[in-house]
Amino acid sequence: MKIEGRNAVSEAIKSGKTIDRVLVKNGMRDEQSRALVSAIKAAGVKVHFVDKVTIDGESATGKHQGFIAFVTDYRYAEMEDLLSARKGAAPFIVVLDGVEDPHNLGSVIRVCECAGANGLIIGKHRSAAVNETVMRISEGSANHLKIARVGNINAAVDFLKKNGVWVYAVELGGEDIYKTDLTGALALVIGGEDTGVNRLTREKCDKTVTIPMMGKVNSLNASVAAGVAVFEAVRQRR
Amino acid sequence: MKIEGRNAVSEAIKSGKTIDRVLVKNGMRDEQSRALVSAIKAAGVKVHFVDKVTIDGESATGKHQGFIAFVTDYRYAEMEDLLSARKGAAPFIVVLDGVEDPHNLGSVIRVCECAGANGLIIGKHRSAAVNETVMRISEGSANHLKIARVGNINAAVDFLKKNGVWVYAVELGGEDIYKTDLTGALALVIGGEDTGVNRLTREKCDKTVTIPMMGKVNSLNASVAAGVAVFEAVRQRR
Repeated sequence: MKIEGRNAVSEAIKSGKTIDRVLVKNGMRDEQSRALVSAIKAAGVKVHFVDKVTIDGESATGKHQGFIAFVTDYRYAEMEDLLSARKGAAPFIVVLDGVEDPHNLGSVIRVCECAGANGLIIGKHRSAAVNETVMRISEGSANHLKIARVGNINAAVDFLKKNGVWVYAVELGGEDIYKTDLTGALALVIGGEDTGVNRLTREKCDKTVTIPMMGKVNSLNASVAAGVAVFEAVRQRR
Repeated sequence: MKIEGRNAVSEAIKSGKTIDRVLVKNGMRDEQSRALVSAIKAAGVKVHFVDKVTIDGESATGKHQGFIAFVTDYRYAEMEDLLSARKGAAPFIVVLDGVEDPHNLGSVIRVCECAGANGLIIGKHRSAAVNETVMRISEGSANHLKIARVGNINAAVDFLKKNGVWVYAVELGGEDIYKTDLTGALALVIGGEDTGVNRLTREKCDKTVTIPMMGKVNSLNASVAAGVAVFEAVRQRR
């Protein structure tokens, strides 16, 4: 879906809609336009500067005023929706804390879908959103998985704990994941590419669990770490 | 390392050196140059056409004749090297069959390094080589892992079997990996992004093992599937 015009694009940014990218006509140098470009970038949305012919060609209304936003139609779930497990099974939820690479997000969505997880919780800040790239990487898995996008991961952890879900951070320096009971109502928190699970979030979690490492570099890609941890839970829960 | 000049680049291609990319000056239209460009592309190496100023700037010798190849210095291991396990441990080897995406190869190298595998076997054809991108993605893991690059994956499977290694293909439609004994001398064969493990290779393997899938789309990224399978072996082998 396209949103055209300076005000409409500005509103879309403020509303927190999932915006894949914004086309901006070259040479929009007035103060208002420059402020909007800054706001778009601050929201973590990609700006593509294009020439007049290109943006005119993309415009459906002819009234783009130099700005066209491409909005993803992906419909996020509510956290409550993730708690309703499939019949007879305890909920199993994955929380992603600060995964910014859309390839990793798409890959984690595939992991959750394959593992039959109830759903995935992602943050609004420092996190990739479900845009067209993520959809493509997920090979459509995003359409079959409940994904909740929350303003605050720590609040999400509190919410899960209040609802009887055990929340474990997957990080270095914790209990051996292969010696941890991963059955029952469970959420696994996976950290971002460089930072891992945020310290405050980790402190809120009931436990830290660790994938044993036997090499020298010992660095797994975020989506691979998610796959290893989530499928260990699958193994135990079957 | 740079290799400059038409003949030198041609020899490098023929020798099977690991070439990351070749810069070719725009407008090299004589028959010999066109044949060399075809040979470079046929070898699966990327060609970047650049202007005279750019290629002159990259040249260390000033005698590039319109061609500069960037050769990766990565030193591959021999298959024999992979068999010598660490003291007291049975060999554990990963074989990648047709993974063409350098991101996936880099990610699988990280998996093998973290898992303390003896090494990784990759093919020369339809496969990414250890170039600068793979090195970067692997976060240096490639320097701590023995990687053998072989002309024929099926011959590699035969070699492993002759040396007392059980070779299991990780693919759909096989025995539940969580019910399979993965201890002992073991090689896991992981397939490429779209094609999976080649049918002939699969038939050569002692067994097919399968990661259970409980979703609707049920498609794991190749490096994630490698992570899940390899770490199940780690779990059992500890």
